[in-house]
Amino acid sequence: MALTSGTGTLFTVGLGPGDPELMTLKAARIVGSAPVIAYFAKRGRAGHARSIVEGHLRAAVIEERMEYPFTTEVALEDPRYAAEIGTFYEACAARLAARLDAGQDVALLCEGDPFFYGSAMYLFDRLSGEYPSEVVPGVSGMSGCWTQARTPITHGDDVLTVLPGTLDEDALAARLTGCDAAVIMKVGRNLPKIRAALERAGVAGRAIYVERGTMPGERVVKLAELDSAPAPYFSIVLVPGRQRTR
Amino acid sequence: MALTSGTGTLFTVGLGPGDPELMTLKAARIVGSAPVIAYFAKRGRAGHARSIVEGHLRAAVIEERMEYPFTTEVALEDPRYAAEIGTFYEACAARLAARLDAGQDVALLCEGDPFFYGSAMYLFDRLSGEYPSEVVPGVSGMSGCWTQARTPITHGDDVLTVLPGTLDEDALAARLTGCDAAVIMKVGRNLPKIRAALERAGVAGRAIYVERGTMPGERVVKLAELDSAPAPYFSIVLVPGRQRTR
Repeated sequence: MALTSGTGTLFTVGLGPGDPELMTLKAARIVGSAPVIAYFAKRGRAGHARSIVEGHLRAAVIEERMEYPFTTEVALEDPRYAAEIGTFYEACAARLAARLDAGQDVALLCEGDPFFYGSAMYLFDRLSGEYPSEVVPGVSGMSGCWTQARTPITHGDDVLTVLPGTLDEDALAARLTGCDAAVIMKVGRNLPKIRAALERAGVAGRAIYVERGTMPGERVVKLAELDSAPAPYFSIVLVPGRQRTR
Repeated sequence: MALTSGTGTLFTVGLGPGDPELMTLKAARIVGSAPVIAYFAKRGRAGHARSIVEGHLRAAVIEERMEYPFTTEVALEDPRYAAEIGTFYEACAARLAARLDAGQDVALLCEGDPFFYGSAMYLFDRLSGEYPSEVVPGVSGMSGCWTQARTPITHGDDVLTVLPGTLDEDALAARLTGCDAAVIMKVGRNLPKIRAALERAGVAGRAIYVERGTMPGERVVKLAELDSAPAPYFSIVLVPGRQRTR
C-alpha cells in the first residue's frame, strides 16, 4: 500500500456532460488504454458514465462496476444515507486498491468534471495518498446545459453563484436575491422548492430549465413554461447574467 | 445575410484550459475540418487559442487573426475601452460575415468554455441571428486550475461563488464572507485587492493561487506563500469548499 513502482496508477477521468464527443482527447486516450475501468451505477441501470465510454474501451477491459446500495433515491438528510454511503465508499476503495496493488492502472470514470460535485472524489480522497494518481478535468454538466440553451451564462464582471437544489428554500431564496447569474444543480424532486425560491428572489422570469443537456431526449424550456411533473436527476436550472452591453 | 443554404456555419469552439489534450473530441474534429479559423490575439503575440490548436489544422486553412486594438492592458472602466472595443467587435463580426456569406464554415476559437466569460460571445451574439451556428462547450479554465491543484472545489451541498477579480474590494469581501467555496477569475494586476478582500472575509488561509494551470510554466502555491510580484493574466485564486465528511 505504498508509492512503489509496482503499483498501478489511479486515473480519475472526467467524461463531460453526456455527449460522448464532449470527452477530452486525454480522457479518450486514458479510457482507451486502461486495463481496468471503474464506475458507479444504480441497480438495474447500465451506469451513465459507462454508457459514455462505450466504443472507446479495450477489448479485454476489466470492469469494476460499483453499485449504489440504494434502490431508490435516498435523501441526503436520511440517517440511512450517512450510515450506508460511507461503508459503500470504503468497500469500493478496497476493490480499487486491490487492482492497484496488483500493478493494474485503473480509470475511475466520472460524469462531468470530477472535482465539481463528483462522487469519484470520495474514492480519490481515500486512495490518492497511497497510490500514484492523476485527475483529468472534464466539461461540466452545467457548461453542457448553458451551451445547449444557447445562452451565455456570464459576461464581463457578472458574478456566478452555483447552488445545489438540496438547500432549503430560504437559503436558496437568500442566495438568488440580487444575483447576477446562477445555476441550480441537482434539481430532480427539488423542483417545486427551487421554483418557489426563484419566485421569491424575483428571478423566475429569467430562469431556463434544461433536462438531459447534450444527451438523447434533451429538453430546454423556459421555467415559466414547464409543467409541474417531477424533474429527472439530469436536470438543471439556469439564471443567465446580464446580456451583451458592448 | 439570411439563413440560406449557401451560407457557412459559425462554430464557436471551446478549447479548454490550455493543455491541447484537454480539447474535446468534437472541438478537435471541427477545428481539423474547418476551412477558416478565427481567433483573438494581442499585438506581437501568437494568440493563446491559436497555439492550442497547433497541429490540429488543415494544411490550407485560412486564418482570420483578430488583433485587439490595445497594445497594453486597458482597464474595463477606462473610457477608451468602451469606445474602442465595440468598434473592434463590429469589425471582427463583419470579417467573419464575409466568410460565411461566401459559404465558408468558420471555427471561432475560444479558450476555456465559450459561454463562461468568453470574448467569443461578443461575435456569437452579433452573428448567430443571421447565420447557422453551433457552440461547442469546453473544459473551463477554473476546472483546469482546481484539477492541477489536486483540490476538489465542491463537495455535497457546498455553494460555489465565481467572482471576477475586477470587482471592487468591498464587493469582493462581501461576497467572500461566509462563502463555502469560491473562485476568483481575472486575477492579473487585481491581486493585491483580491488578497485584501480574502483577508477581510477571513478565508485567506484556505486560498490557493494557480498560474498558467495545465500549461507550461504552471505554478500552484498557497496564497499565503505567494510573493507580491504582479500576477499574469492566466492566474486564478481558489477557495476550496468543505473537505470530505463521508
